[in-house]
Amino acid sequence: MIIYEAKNWFGALKHFHTSYSIQVLLKRVGYVSVYGILLTLIDQHVADIHVPFDGTLFSLLGITLSLLLVFRTNTAYDRFWEGRRQWGLLVNYSRNLAVLLDALLPDEAVTNRIFFARMLSNFALALKGHLRTGVDFAELEETGNDELKTLPDYTHIPSRLAALLMRRFQALRQDGLVNDADLITVRLYHQALLDITGSCERIKKTPIPFSYSFFIKLFITLYVLLIPLVLVSNYGYFGILATTLAAYALIGIEMIGDEIEEPFGLDCNDLPLNQIAQTIRRNVHEILRVEPSTIVQPKQEVDYIKVN
Amino acid sequence: MIIYEAKNWFGALKHFHTSYSIQVLLKRVGYVSVYGILLTLIDQHVADIHVPFDGTLFSLLGITLSLLLVFRTNTAYDRFWEGRRQWGLLVNYSRNLAVLLDALLPDEAVTNRIFFARMLSNFALALKGHLRTGVDFAELEETGNDELKTLPDYTHIPSRLAALLMRRFQALRQDGLVNDADLITVRLYHQALLDITGSCERIKKTPIPFSYSFFIKLFITLYVLLIPLVLVSNYGYFGILATTLAAYALIGIEMIGDEIEEPFGLDCNDLPLNQIAQTIRRNVHEILRVEPSTIVQPKQEVDYIKVN
Amino acid sequence: MIIYEAKNWFGALKHFHTSYSIQVLLKRVGYVSVYGILLTLIDQHVADIHVPFDGTLFSLLGITLSLLLVFRTNTAYDRFWEGRRQWGLLVNYSRNLAVLLDALLPDEAVTNRIFFARMLSNFALALKGHLRTGVDFAELEETGNDELKTLPDYTHIPSRLAALLMRRFQALRQDGLVNDADLITVRLYHQALLDITGSCERIKKTPIPFSYSFFIKLFITLYVLLIPLVLVSNYGYFGILATTLAAYALIGIEMIGDEIEEPFGLDCNDLPLNQIAQTIRRNVHEILRVEPSTIVQPKQEVDYIKVN
Amino acid sequence: MIIYEAKNWFGALKHFHTSYSIQVLLKRVGYVSVYGILLTLIDQHVADIHVPFDGTLFSLLGITLSLLLVFRTNTAYDRFWEGRRQWGLLVNYSRNLAVLLDALLPDEAVTNRIFFARMLSNFALALKGHLRTGVDFAELEETGNDELKTLPDYTHIPSRLAALLMRRFQALRQDGLVNDADLITVRLYHQALLDITGSCERIKKTPIPFSYSFFIKLFITLYVLLIPLVLVSNYGYFGILATTLAAYALIGIEMIGDEIEEPFGLDCNDLPLNQIAQTIRRNVHEILRVEPSTIVQPKQEVDYIKVN
Amino acid sequence: MIIYEAKNWFGALKHFHTSYSIQVLLKRVGYVSVYGILLTLIDQHVADIHVPFDGTLFSLLGITLSLLLVFRTNTAYDRFWEGRRQWGLLVNYSRNLAVLLDALLPDEAVTNRIFFARMLSNFALALKGHLRTGVDFAELEETGNDELKTLPDYTHIPSRLAALLMRRFQALRQDGLVNDADLITVRLYHQALLDITGSCERIKKTPIPFSYSFFIKLFITLYVLLIPLVLVSNYGYFGILATTLAAYALIGIEMIGDEIEEPFGLDCNDLPLNQIAQTIRRNVHEILRVEPSTIVQPKQEVDYIKVN
Repeated sequence: MIIYEAKNWFGALKHFHTSYSIQVLLKRVGYVSVYGILLTLIDQHVADIHVPFDGTLFSLLGITLSLLLVFRTNTAYDRFWEGRRQWGLLVNYSRNLAVLLDALLPDEAVTNRIFFARMLSNFALALKGHLRTGVDFAELEETGNDELKTLPDYTHIPSRLAALLMRRFQALRQDGLVNDADLITVRLYHQALLDITGSCERIKKTPIPFSYSFFIKLFITLYVLLIPLVLVSNYGYFGILATTLAAYALIGIEMIGDEIEEPFGLDCNDLPLNQIAQTIRRNVHEILRVEPSTIVQPKQEVDYIKVN
Repeated sequence: MIIYEAKNWFGALKHFHTSYSIQVLLKRVGYVSVYGILLTLIDQHVADIHVPFDGTLFSLLGITLSLLLVFRTNTAYDRFWEGRRQWGLLVNYSRNLAVLLDALLPDEAVTNRIFFARMLSNFALALKGHLRTGVDFAELEETGNDELKTLPDYTHIPSRLAALLMRRFQALRQDGLVNDADLITVRLYHQALLDITGSCERIKKTPIPFSYSFFIKLFITLYVLLIPLVLVSNYGYFGILATTLAAYALIGIEMIGDEIEEPFGLDCNDLPLNQIAQTIRRNVHEILRVEPSTIVQPKQEVDYIKVN
Repeated sequence: MIIYEAKNWFGALKHFHTSYSIQVLLKRVGYVSVYGILLTLIDQHVADIHVPFDGTLFSLLGITLSLLLVFRTNTAYDRFWEGRRQWGLLVNYSRNLAVLLDALLPDEAVTNRIFFARMLSNFALALKGHLRTGVDFAELEETGNDELKTLPDYTHIPSRLAALLMRRFQALRQDGLVNDADLITVRLYHQALLDITGSCERIKKTPIPFSYSFFIKLFITLYVLLIPLVLVSNYGYFGILATTLAAYALIGIEMIGDEIEEPFGLDCNDLPLNQIAQTIRRNVHEILRVEPSTIVQPKQEVDYIKVN
Repeated sequence: MIIYEAKNWFGALKHFHTSYSIQVLLKRVGYVSVYGILLTLIDQHVADIHVPFDGTLFSLLGITLSLLLVFRTNTAYDRFWEGRRQWGLLVNYSRNLAVLLDALLPDEAVTNRIFFARMLSNFALALKGHLRTGVDFAELEETGNDELKTLPDYTHIPSRLAALLMRRFQALRQDGLVNDADLITVRLYHQALLDITGSCERIKKTPIPFSYSFFIKLFITLYVLLIPLVLVSNYGYFGILATTLAAYALIGIEMIGDEIEEPFGLDCNDLPLNQIAQTIRRNVHEILRVEPSTIVQPKQEVDYIKVN
Repeated sequence: MIIYEAKNWFGALKHFHTSYSIQVLLKRVGYVSVYGILLTLIDQHVADIHVPFDGTLFSLLGITLSLLLVFRTNTAYDRFWEGRRQWGLLVNYSRNLAVLLDALLPDEAVTNRIFFARMLSNFALALKGHLRTGVDFAELEETGNDELKTLPDYTHIPSRLAALLMRRFQALRQDGLVNDADLITVRLYHQALLDITGSCERIKKTPIPFSYSFFIKLFITLYVLLIPLVLVSNYGYFGILATTLAAYALIGIEMIGDEIEEPFGLDCNDLPLNQIAQTIRRNVHEILRVEPSTIVQPKQEVDYIKVN
């Protein structure tokens, strides 16, 4: 995710190179411009290639296309925001679990406190990996029982970590550290872990249906190819300017939609999962009053910098 | 569902044949083109058939139609996405139940572990069948008590499976394996099974009201039939191009809406219920540490392939 | 509700007479056509009545009106869909209560099983009546204690049925058939009954505010009356075609909105409350393993048939 | 709130005088007409005052304005509907509490039954007053312990009533009439009372941000003032008609939005809080089988009548 | 937040200077006017600089831009409103906790009552600081155990306060003042505190993705720069008027969006967090019947005044 200052208009414009997809967009718009220039050159010097496409209908199709693109933008942003909300919930429930366990466990139950501080941190880090390129087992910290050693044997790591947590709660009950009423609340919080996992997997694995994606892309392609054909004979070289701006608008909206609809990757606009996971780690250690074994400094949140 | 790579613009365009509804759309657009060609031929060679329909009003009706189509698209997509969310919840609650039972049941309670692993898998597979063409009893696995033998006597299989699960929880209580406080959480998770079933049935059985469906289809039909009549005398053969593109846009949005508003079928853009059910099966067996009796390999998720 | 096949384009168009509101719409559009014909005749034969209303502004007002109509359509559909969701919840909670009671009650507790099977069915049937023309007491089945005899003395029947159910749960507790922990879940499910009742009453009793309804209707009326005045002198008889199509679009969207915003009546597009109530009745009897006293066959779901 | 019959098109149009805001709107539109007439008179008889504002841009700004107004309409209606939903929840939870207490309290616990029937009624009436011009203590009924006498000492009456209810539940526990498990459910229902209070306060105290309200009002003012300047020389007296209709559309949408975004007042389109509170009063007395001390007849719900 | 009277049209227009962002907007619009004047002067006196940009396409791009801006407005407003809802929840849950504790604690448990009244107030004040420029420890009140002295050692103050509250509940259990069943409800309410914290942090830290923000700002910049180039030769000095109004519309929507999407600051349209926190403080003290140590008078809610 790129951190930026929303109200600084020109500051934003100066940092266009910070966003990879804006760069790709400008390149693609460049291709369309070249196409427009070629057509105009042919029209001016070789042969008249004006297509008398009806202006009203042309405009109408443009509006239809714009409405579709706004639909597309809305769904893409909804996924982005739902992904963010899920990770926000992970922060909330990790803290809530930590606060509850801090009150339930006596101050001297250091082993248990370390177990939960590390396990909750591990869960966030493992979920990050699970949603990106795979869990990086080196990031996880041993919780005391060699439980992490067998982790690679499992296909679904977050489920396994959730199961280990649940078994530990059960062990606390047998040790008399928590009772049945406590467990009702503990399980309510714990349930959130796999709910969040499932929701993120859903967003990741189910993009907007192929038909829509194809339909919109073909619509834009045909429309953008048509613009200079329609404009060339009346507006000459100025048609290129119009074509370029239209290509910028239409291709841009579609591309940004493609980028943010799956917000768990490492693209410029994707969510800073690693940063959020580190926040969880810092917070649960602090709440449970456990010293973290290594300290990862939070990145300075400088403007126009990418965090992931 | 077709798996595809959202950011690959031309890759998407090359795979139009992968989507059945895109094919049907292109065929229907072809009919409209033929209609446009015939009208143009008549106009050019037989008799002038231009209709001086007012341009402003024509454009305005087009915008009204586009707005309606976006409404239609939104509702269709909301149903698609709500269907997906329900199956996501089924994944979550199956895992949550499995994690909780794994902690509650002693490691040596193998019969119970097998029962729940199979029963939760059976539920997902039965719901898939229930929403498609009917439950395929051969897909379900025996859970130890010949309970599946009487299943075909019931009219609503998912309810019956939920009842069998609930009775088993009750039996666990009588055996002292779970207590009252455990049951409060267990029942909360179990409740989700029939909530999901009901929500999916609702999406399946209640399409957008017939009045809207009819109203939009008649509107599009009239509008598309009118386009070449309005354009033919001014634009000649180029009017066919305009008609074709407009037909593509208007018919396309409506058709894709029709396709995805009921997302549980076997259409190209429908949800991969079978794949999700197999995921649940793999996960709950793994969490409960039970070996699945047969292993269904997850389909390789290759780009531009249909999974169901 | 009319059952139809969404993907069959021409099948839908052929069944316009199935929907009463489509018929009324076509009649109203007819009136506007007659008005347009009269104006054109006067203009052509008696006196020029063209109004030089500015084309740009005319188009702009049309767009404003279309946007308002889409807002209207969205709110109407949201109410329709929320009404459907509430009845979906009634299905879910009836089943969930039945599944839970089936596990709690011993197989031989036939009186109790009959009581709950019938009472849950009665609740759905009474709510249907309550939302339509009034509860039909003949539809309800006696539950064993002459409790239905005093029902007509109450002004709010669903509340009374909910109270009878709650009192029976309390009696089960005194008989030792359910315990305190069971009751926590039972009451959670039971609460849904009156929540659903209240939500449906809310949808029924609070339509879109009168100001909006009036504002939109006056806007459409003025706009449709203006169209032929504006078009008549330039387009002659073809203006009638344009007027008719515009009237179809604008009046149609408003009328369908009016129809579906209160979805509990007996209009063609209203929800099949009776069918859903019968489904609940069949399901809860089956789950509780009680033979229903009378068997109402589910209507065959034939295409283009109205169910209520 | 004005009760009306949605499907009666001309019935609605005839009752424009029922809505105060429609009257104010028509007056304001009248002013704009007068302004248009004056400009036209000056243009025709004194000096040409046509402003050659670009038609395309003029239309475009109108569309931008329309889109903004739809945004404004959506947010205003969402507040209206959320306010209605909160009061619907108050109905639901009052009934649910009454049903639960009816089952928990023995039939002969008349004092307690009267206490809860009156207190739940008092809460609804107090919340109505709290959201309008202040609690009318004369409307509240004494509940037996002189508790209402000290009510005026408190600044936040609904909180105090909620606290009195909660203390009574606690007293019931000490008397052995409810146990711990019952209290879990009772408190869940009770919690809704203050949640609803807070939500209504939020809607009341936080209108759409001033910047939006100002921005839209200035935009409309400038736009409406510009219309006759742009139209006057081409369209003469017919420009007045166009100006009037545009003013009706643009000012109307904004005004209705202003009216319904705070739905708790006594405006024509505001929610019938008093009627809903009386419904709650009737229902909880009936459910708890307590005779209400005074009987307020529900207003006959005649069409086109205002209820509050 | 600026308090204003929604229905007073001209009252609103007169207070434009109350909103800082309206002032900045008017300044920026001024710059665009100057740019338009310069271009017009050059065109009229130096050299023709008209760009024959196609009118249809120009209008279409404007519509696309307007649709994007409405999307932007919607997301910004949703964040504003979600932020407000979270603080509304904080009010609700603080009151609910106070009401529950008031019933659970005996009247003479003054130390505990003071602890909770102050701690709940501290939480709201600390969250305000946490979301703005940092917690102001001088605002918090000592709760009796020197717990606030070590607060500055913690990095996440709201978590620490939540942990202190939870530990106190645990202490109440050990003292026999609350039992297990009470704690289930208490924890449910307590959980809301960190959920609200997390949700507000999410809104604050995740603005709309940079790509969208950049894309829209560049689009507006290009579009506004283009307007006078397109209009200048046809409309002369009147083109400046058109340019200015368009700049007002387009830049205005974007700027207000930028302002309200992060609603926790001290901008004119930001939420009155301090006022809400003081409301919580007054309410919880009153409910728990504790005299507040200092009395902060609520600001008189005068129209067109800024509260924060």
